[in-house]
Amino acid sequence: MYNPVGVAAIGLGRWAYVMADAYTKSEKLKLVTCYSRTEDKREKFGKRYNCAGDATMEALLAREDVEMVIITVPNDKHAEVIEQCARAGKHIYVEKPISVSLDHAQRIDQVIKETGVKFLCGHSSRRLGALRKMKEMIDTKEIGEVSSIEAVFSNERGLELKKGNWRGDPATAPGGPLTQLGVHQIDNLQFLLGPVARVFNFGKPMYTEVENITVNQTLLEFEDGKQAYLGTNWACPGVFSINVYGTKANLFYQLDFSWWSNSDVTDEHSTLIKREFASMSDDPDNRILRDVKVDFESVDHLRVEVEEVADVIRNGGETEIGAEASLRNLAVVLAAVKSVHEKRPVEIAEIIG
Amino acid sequence: MYNPVGVAAIGLGRWAYVMADAYTKSEKLKLVTCYSRTEDKREKFGKRYNCAGDATMEALLAREDVEMVIITVPNDKHAEVIEQCARAGKHIYVEKPISVSLDHAQRIDQVIKETGVKFLCGHSSRRLGALRKMKEMIDTKEIGEVSSIEAVFSNERGLELKKGNWRGDPATAPGGPLTQLGVHQIDNLQFLLGPVARVFNFGKPMYTEVENITVNQTLLEFEDGKQAYLGTNWACPGVFSINVYGTKANLFYQLDFSWWSNSDVTDEHSTLIKREFASMSDDPDNRILRDVKVDFESVDHLRVEVEEVADVIRNGGETEIGAEASLRNLAVVLAAVKSVHEKRPVEIAEIIG
Repeated sequence: MYNPVGVAAIGLGRWAYVMADAYTKSEKLKLVTCYSRTEDKREKFGKRYNCAGDATMEALLAREDVEMVIITVPNDKHAEVIEQCARAGKHIYVEKPISVSLDHAQRIDQVIKETGVKFLCGHSSRRLGALRKMKEMIDTKEIGEVSSIEAVFSNERGLELKKGNWRGDPATAPGGPLTQLGVHQIDNLQFLLGPVARVFNFGKPMYTEVENITVNQTLLEFEDGKQAYLGTNWACPGVFSINVYGTKANLFYQLDFSWWSNSDVTDEHSTLIKREFASMSDDPDNRILRDVKVDFESVDHLRVEVEEVADVIRNGGETEIGAEASLRNLAVVLAAVKSVHEKRPVEIAEIIG
Repeated sequence: MYNPVGVAAIGLGRWAYVMADAYTKSEKLKLVTCYSRTEDKREKFGKRYNCAGDATMEALLAREDVEMVIITVPNDKHAEVIEQCARAGKHIYVEKPISVSLDHAQRIDQVIKETGVKFLCGHSSRRLGALRKMKEMIDTKEIGEVSSIEAVFSNERGLELKKGNWRGDPATAPGGPLTQLGVHQIDNLQFLLGPVARVFNFGKPMYTEVENITVNQTLLEFEDGKQAYLGTNWACPGVFSINVYGTKANLFYQLDFSWWSNSDVTDEHSTLIKREFASMSDDPDNRILRDVKVDFESVDHLRVEVEEVADVIRNGGETEIGAEASLRNLAVVLAAVKSVHEKRPVEIAEIIG
């Protein structure tokens, strides 16, 4: 194969550990150094993963053994850090969402185009084995023609938010769970059905002390007329589910959110059910439905997405989720937030022009 | 107890048989006669249920052994038939929806008030044991505070509709599955969470040869700020499900649509799951969720609703779902259809003034 790609971790919060647990198992990557402004954080991370630490971004970016950066800094810092890294010639993995403002997302798109570095935004859930299987069953029309989808990604985070937390601020987390959780499902929906054309959203703060939206229910209409519902709620126990309605069969997918951060076994803690007709009859009261378990490959969703960046660095080509695709995911979030404020359906074209 | 209430069946299509299968098992009711304009239909029904048949409505309404009528004529004939029966002093059970136009619903409301007869609109699904259990778990706050619900009622009916069928005509089935299936869930949602204030709907014909809407995705906002999603789709295998999101637990309810018309065993072919925290931790990555099966009483949803009319005839009081409540269910349907045409959220107050 190829030499492992040298990796630096930038931003050393909780998610940096979840990511490193996944990609340090890969033979395609070698974690060489890390950076955070806080020395303690560098030491703790370096000790855990047996890597160096750099005291400044300049020092890190000057290293020749760093080809790629894994960026898990706060969302509103993505643009600034990506610009710095891309201009130093480093390839980039950045956590979703690409940013929380269109302006920042456009700056990122611009600098990636200018510098030609490889780029991936970490919408990992479309990598899950179950998602790939659903995509195949839709594309081959095994479930007939699809009319609609329902996707939910929710957890209890809003119930515990304290004033001052960035998740409670509409500027740093527009739409609350829509930015933090929903953007995964928006990526899945556009992966499964193509580009969204317009959205409508009911959203509001509920059962929280922050002023940000914590409960959203959003409708999406796709460019080809198909439809989807997206539920993102920060006021309930964790849920991650996708239902697909086809003319021949429905699919019901659910993963156990307890295992979301254990990316090597997330697929193993999930189920995909296909509902089809066991017997047909001219009399609609005499039709029998049957639910069948669907098998799929188990995939480490965090590991494979980082490996994809390594692959395009070594072999050329582009990643599945570049700056433009992730900007389109953000645009759906921003349109949904605008819909709440303006109490009307909002076209994606109004957001990205 | 009391003497059985004498019943007449008016309108002898498919659903008259499904209803009669349920209420003829009750000791509170006695089916004495039936009416349809078609003699063959009267004979077939009379033979099956061992009852008389009347050749005219006038003859039927003149009978002293008929205290109550079970009306399953087409939706757009409800108002006319109900007026005739109420003015003859007969108590009334009518299939849902109360009507397909506000004008007709108001005529029904008016004649019930004028004549003082007892009235029930057959939104049977709120009678299911699982629905009663969910209502109890919401009201007692066993699942904490509820923020949102998702309800789905769908089947394959639109795929087979031929031009000329009343279900394919927006005048006789506004919103397609929204009128025919969704109104059950609208009743359930208003039963569980109170009055709806406004709705937004994406709806369109899909995979059908008729011009009526066959796929709807609808958002509902309640007067107290809670929210719900309603999916009604005539282009997929049957689904009937309700998910409730609470701060302490979620509920996932699903019935096997194959058993919808077998009202004595519908509850037995359904599952209610409660998702709660099995273990809590300050670290959100270390929380474990647990799904627990919830038991509930099995109820014959069609039988008990007809028995309720008998009960209020003998004992006084009013039924759970009078003309005003069922008019409010229709208003949500009509607001959702208006939302499709006007591409904006529609207030229920715009419909019922």
